[in-house]
Amino acid sequence: MNIHELVQELREPAQSKIVLLVADGLGGLPITPGGRTELETARTPHLDALAAAGVSGLSTPVLPGITPGSGPGHLGLFGYDPLEFRIGRGILEALGINFSVGARDVAVRGNFCTLAADGTITDRRAGRPTTERCIAVVDKLRAITIPGVEIYLEPVKEHRFVVVFRADTLGDRVNDTDPQNVGVHPLMAEGPDEASQRTAQFANQFVAQAGKVLANEPDANGVTLRGFAKHPKIESFRDVYGLKAAALAVYPMYKGLARLVGMDVLDAGQTLTELVATMGRVWNEYDFFFLHYKYSDSTGEDGDFTAKVAAIEKFDAVIPDVQVLNPDVLIVTGDHSTPSKMKSHSFHPVPTVLVSDLARPDGLTAFGERECLRGGLGQFQAKHLMLLAMAHAGRFGKYGA
Amino acid sequence: MNIHELVQELREPAQSKIVLLVADGLGGLPITPGGRTELETARTPHLDALAAAGVSGLSTPVLPGITPGSGPGHLGLFGYDPLEFRIGRGILEALGINFSVGARDVAVRGNFCTLAADGTITDRRAGRPTTERCIAVVDKLRAITIPGVEIYLEPVKEHRFVVVFRADTLGDRVNDTDPQNVGVHPLMAEGPDEASQRTAQFANQFVAQAGKVLANEPDANGVTLRGFAKHPKIESFRDVYGLKAAALAVYPMYKGLARLVGMDVLDAGQTLTELVATMGRVWNEYDFFFLHYKYSDSTGEDGDFTAKVAAIEKFDAVIPDVQVLNPDVLIVTGDHSTPSKMKSHSFHPVPTVLVSDLARPDGLTAFGERECLRGGLGQFQAKHLMLLAMAHAGRFGKYGA
Repeated sequence: MNIHELVQELREPAQSKIVLLVADGLGGLPITPGGRTELETARTPHLDALAAAGVSGLSTPVLPGITPGSGPGHLGLFGYDPLEFRIGRGILEALGINFSVGARDVAVRGNFCTLAADGTITDRRAGRPTTERCIAVVDKLRAITIPGVEIYLEPVKEHRFVVVFRADTLGDRVNDTDPQNVGVHPLMAEGPDEASQRTAQFANQFVAQAGKVLANEPDANGVTLRGFAKHPKIESFRDVYGLKAAALAVYPMYKGLARLVGMDVLDAGQTLTELVATMGRVWNEYDFFFLHYKYSDSTGEDGDFTAKVAAIEKFDAVIPDVQVLNPDVLIVTGDHSTPSKMKSHSFHPVPTVLVSDLARPDGLTAFGERECLRGGLGQFQAKHLMLLAMAHAGRFGKYGA
Repeated sequence: MNIHELVQELREPAQSKIVLLVADGLGGLPITPGGRTELETARTPHLDALAAAGVSGLSTPVLPGITPGSGPGHLGLFGYDPLEFRIGRGILEALGINFSVGARDVAVRGNFCTLAADGTITDRRAGRPTTERCIAVVDKLRAITIPGVEIYLEPVKEHRFVVVFRADTLGDRVNDTDPQNVGVHPLMAEGPDEASQRTAQFANQFVAQAGKVLANEPDANGVTLRGFAKHPKIESFRDVYGLKAAALAVYPMYKGLARLVGMDVLDAGQTLTELVATMGRVWNEYDFFFLHYKYSDSTGEDGDFTAKVAAIEKFDAVIPDVQVLNPDVLIVTGDHSTPSKMKSHSFHPVPTVLVSDLARPDGLTAFGERECLRGGLGQFQAKHLMLLAMAHAGRFGKYGA
């Protein structure tokens, strides 16, 4: 039986409120053998108090050893199996720039490249233009029109942009045209079914016209296309859990992921303090609050152990402002680990704590990777966290008589 | 690969004996934050000795956060995936009163209700009649006959009874006629396929005749029907594990669940001491012994922490009488948790200990929720417990060369 069907069968109305605080990339590693992780190093009196009051554990975002991107990492936390629900790269790029992808759309990630006179690729990233150049070159592409399809273009960063093809019955089973190599021609787009073949033809026309429009550009004189993707069929958070959910995030990617599952994405401000203040303001209007904090991840990506420690301490400092709202279930976790030692997302399980009146004591007194290992939630799959949230919130009936 | 197929492939004959002691609703919660659970409070020298000798852990009955009824809870312990094998409410009710459901039967839970003159429901439970009244009113229903179907009626308790329709090719995909509301008419039964439609027609005729028979009753003047269910297709315990199994239980529900998987349900007495004595008497005749102890659950359901502690201590006291039989594998667990704090079944994982010569020491010296967290079995799915039992009993060959 599908877990979402089970949830829909068991869920019961309740007045309880659930808060999910996601400190992006929360988990880490010591820099030196036997040392402490960023979280273990940080002074976190409030998180430690949560661990003492609640039940802790380690979340496995996808499977042991699998490092997730932000998409799968968050889908898991929202209770969507990240191996079942795959969000295409084109959709993620579009979400990341706040482009609202509709049912008739195929979103595609575009790359500017440099082509030699014979049409072969000499630089797959067109010499990594500045983002200002990217914006200017994308503006030139707006001249392109193709009968039968609407085209939407948005710059992203450096050599990257998003193109969205909008028409009836477009498919997304289209190959990448980036050959992942220099010295060869870009590939032609093709589709194995009629709808995808339609998309492929529009894509090939787009690439051909782009070549003409950009013929005189010194570097960015060609484009390749990757990650053709339609909006995935995904049941909304409200339909699955019966929860009215608010998303509080600063960055478009996380707003986009929340919007993808149908949460209300609020205009919540630019700082953590503002996000928490917004939560307080809309407290009576929602059942579920997803708050995203970015800097535990970005500092880790930068390889800056000290900055990640500081970011975690800043996160710790707002916990009392959430507690004062008196949520029935308060969860702190991350979408994945980002050890500053690795300067990247990693596969390591993620420290997690859940506080509710029904939390069974596990004897912990601090929040950290080593502590969570001995926590009452054990090591669990991220996709099961929402089951625990619903149970602790008194929102599930009994399974079977 | 299906787990039962794997078991059938790997199982090997042996003389070893396995004892599964199920203390219903064993797991609990502290009443006050940081306090002890019922099991942690109870003086349990014998269970503590088992923990010291064996390997412990926490069993998840279905999935994290999912609270099971007795049916799914026991099926999991018997090694049947409770999400795959679903036992309909009608079957469970019939099992609960010791009615032996056959292959041609559809079992249904009936409720007496009170109908207004216009046929709408004014009380879904007919004012909760006494069980004596229930018996008397069910006796009146025995006058009902419908051509083409045999009807069996049994009182259960208060407003509840069981009706079994017996005929060839009856289906059970029939909706509940209880509208779950007052001020409205009961629903008509309907089925989406021919066999279920046959059942639905018999059900509607039964309800109509019941209305006439009960027309002059003050409260119980109508009936609604719920949980239409045929006997599930379920492979017997013996076919799966090659174990000749005896069930020792006092209450019909648990006898019924054991009978459902084909165990021999013994006339084992009314007390825990009698059940254990019966186990000793039939020791040479069986490979596997399931013993069910009810009072760790019922005291929890009553919200009586002290009584649950006492029930657990009483359970502890009989452990030596089981040990003296020298089982090769002795398991103590529960089908779910029933914290007296919640007065209900709960989703919390269940303390479990397994003793055998092959148990790898985990350093525990006591049996309790917090201890089991650090046990060698970790947190495991209940449906895998029988795999461990078989392995520790030397009843599995190697998988693959």
